Amino acid sequence: MNAELLTIGNEILIGQITNTNSVWMAQQLNMMGVSIVHMSSVADERDVILKAFDDASRRADIVLITGGLGPTKDDITKKTFCDYFDTELVIDENVLNDVTGFFAKRNRELTELNRKQAEVPKGCSVIRNKNGTAPGMWMEKNNTIFVSMPGVPFEMQAMVTEDVIPEIKKRFKLPFIFHKTILTQGIGESFLAELISDWEDGLAEKEIGLAYLPSPGMVRLRLSSKGFDELELKNRIEQEVEKLKPLIDKYIYGYEEYGKEQPKLEEILGQLLLEKGLKLGLAESCTGGFISHLITSVAGSSNYYNGCIVPYHNEFKHNLLKVDHSIFEKHGAVSKECVEAMVKETLQVFNANVAIAVSGIAGPGGGTPDKPVGTVWIAVAHEDKILAKHFIFGDNRLRNIQMTANAAMNMLRKLILNIED
Amino acid sequence: MNAELLTIGNEILIGQITNTNSVWMAQQLNMMGVSIVHMSSVADERDVILKAFDDASRRADIVLITGGLGPTKDDITKKTFCDYFDTELVIDENVLNDVTGFFAKRNRELTELNRKQAEVPKGCSVIRNKNGTAPGMWMEKNNTIFVSMPGVPFEMQAMVTEDVIPEIKKRFKLPFIFHKTILTQGIGESFLAELISDWEDGLAEKEIGLAYLPSPGMVRLRLSSKGFDELELKNRIEQEVEKLKPLIDKYIYGYEEYGKEQPKLEEILGQLLLEKGLKLGLAESCTGGFISHLITSVAGSSNYYNGCIVPYHNEFKHNLLKVDHSIFEKHGAVSKECVEAMVKETLQVFNANVAIAVSGIAGPGGGTPDKPVGTVWIAVAHEDKILAKHFIFGDNRLRNIQMTANAAMNMLRKLILNIED
Repeated sequence: MNAELLTIGNEILIGQITNTNSVWMAQQLNMMGVSIVHMSSVADERDVILKAFDDASRRADIVLITGGLGPTKDDITKKTFCDYFDTELVIDENVLNDVTGFFAKRNRELTELNRKQAEVPKGCSVIRNKNGTAPGMWMEKNNTIFVSMPGVPFEMQAMVTEDVIPEIKKRFKLPFIFHKTILTQGIGESFLAELISDWEDGLAEKEIGLAYLPSPGMVRLRLSSKGFDELELKNRIEQEVEKLKPLIDKYIYGYEEYGKEQPKLEEILGQLLLEKGLKLGLAESCTGGFISHLITSVAGSSNYYNGCIVPYHNEFKHNLLKVDHSIFEKHGAVSKECVEAMVKETLQVFNANVAIAVSGIAGPGGGTPDKPVGTVWIAVAHEDKILAKHFIFGDNRLRNIQMTANAAMNMLRKLILNIED
Repeated sequence: MNAELLTIGNEILIGQITNTNSVWMAQQLNMMGVSIVHMSSVADERDVILKAFDDASRRADIVLITGGLGPTKDDITKKTFCDYFDTELVIDENVLNDVTGFFAKRNRELTELNRKQAEVPKGCSVIRNKNGTAPGMWMEKNNTIFVSMPGVPFEMQAMVTEDVIPEIKKRFKLPFIFHKTILTQGIGESFLAELISDWEDGLAEKEIGLAYLPSPGMVRLRLSSKGFDELELKNRIEQEVEKLKPLIDKYIYGYEEYGKEQPKLEEILGQLLLEKGLKLGLAESCTGGFISHLITSVAGSSNYYNGCIVPYHNEFKHNLLKVDHSIFEKHGAVSKECVEAMVKETLQVFNANVAIAVSGIAGPGGGTPDKPVGTVWIAVAHEDKILAKHFIFGDNRLRNIQMTANAAMNMLRKLILNIED
């Protein structure tokens, strides 16, 4: 089964927006055995859109369209949809209810422009939008399905996950695709590749594909295979995972199971804290609250998270975390002594069992020959056990912040589980 | 003059790679007055590529192609190029020298596979690659120019900047394009559209385009126009911006100037703090450190940022920010009284002139009929001046966090500048 992705919007063509919707959709569809044959982006222009519909219908069984559904005048996808399917716009009462409710809940008046959001092409199947006002639309012509969705990523994503994918599964007999992804932290892509080189050479004859998916400080290894015997497929991949494990054991922090969302490190750590009944406190200098943001981005984190102090100057490391002035003088704020003092006091301040403290030079300024940009000290504590480690990351501020956060969360996870670092 | 961008490679279609090349090329071309009419990504398959060349030639004066030039078997762009132009591959001596030099410099042997990198379609103009081994190729057919370049971003970027753009400028008389983007916060897309509807209606006859670009809690309004008189173009757009300003004055937090990167709200706030010599402290409950992360993502923020407390439970709001227990009992933690108490103490704790405090229900749990998920109180302080406001955002946890952060930073910016909210 073939799919095509079509993005409508001038903002893509002038390079104002990176097309992340297509990547996300491609990942979702590939995971369920649908092949993407084409992706395009076109302008908000009637004739161009009609031509794109026509071309796509010759290549694909289903065309997923995003963008151009806003209430404003520059958005013309819905009208063009009507032209292509030779139909007209009508108010959908369910959508009108949704839109009215959406504004009522926010104590805002429903304007005429908002009311227009409830118009859909006559004859389409409506996909309700829980997160916004523009509905999705599912229509068919000459054996090709067209699905139009808003370009706002989280609105589109909810529609794809909850409506479009289940409907595709009902309508098409898809091969099974089995993926298993091993999540690693603390080893670079090329070093990882060398460690597992012999194992990797054996994958081809088993018809298993391997992809390296790097992000700051982490590499995901995705094994995948396609076929019609689900159990055999699964066993084949699991056998290879078992062979891989001992080779890179200490870098693995989790697995992504087939069909489930990739667990984030902050979710894995959160789950561990919840299971063990531990309470977490943080002290972040160079990461500036980013670890706290990751931890609290997980729903329910208040069950194991107590809070954070970001002491962005030594004065506050002293006032709030009792770091002795002599430590700054002798060792500096980016030092083992400083993060150890910070992590101990963080346990106290937040009445916590486990804590993380970080201090470093995120850059671009602040580096010295002794402590170049990218130098970071991390301390983690689990009751009386304290571990501090020194890292030298890179030159990029945001990347240094991300890499520090990932390294810190994994250090704490390993300390709790008594895994040697 | 019209351009089309074509990406060749399976890795894009399976969602393994985000297509950043297209965004970058679109930005470069737009800035010099070239319109991108289409972007597509297709698989490494001969017939598909030939069809894409053919379609593109009907739409565009120039087609910029990236990808599929590697030395391995799955890369077939070069061969397909020969088929399309009815020619054959020949060794280019200059490129062979480049490739030989490339490997010699790295003390690596030149293999037969590497030697093949020096093959180009007979009759093409070669674009030398300073940063890698695959050369670029410039060919023409039926009045359309095709430029094939490697997919490695920094190799492609050097070719575009140093060779392709100068050549385009030589060959085509290009119009100027002028963009100006107005950055707004605190008003939804549809409300904004109604406010400026009359003004917007007048744009068409002035040949100015308008785009609404929404992100959580913010909308960017982009005006653009094309012409051959740069000054006239600029004046025409600036005049419209001046007419627009009084209509939406209180929502505007900044402007994106032509050819410059869009300033982020945290950068604009940071710049203001720096100019006024103010020091910032934060207290974040429902945003869990996200505001602190945004503020510290800006290089040099330590010049105006002192720190943050994330008191994720009432106990710590009391211990660290002296919020009286009676406030929790009478008003709850998500209340005017609570954020006002928090913001006052934050000024003290961080020895700051300005502060932000937020408390709310990010969701998905924790909502009540009185205070549904999305309810947020924000207080901002500038010395003795304190302002607190109540918001009801939505159901999505991460979006609520982002919208709160944006609203809070803009509230503080306005308080400092004495702009009525």
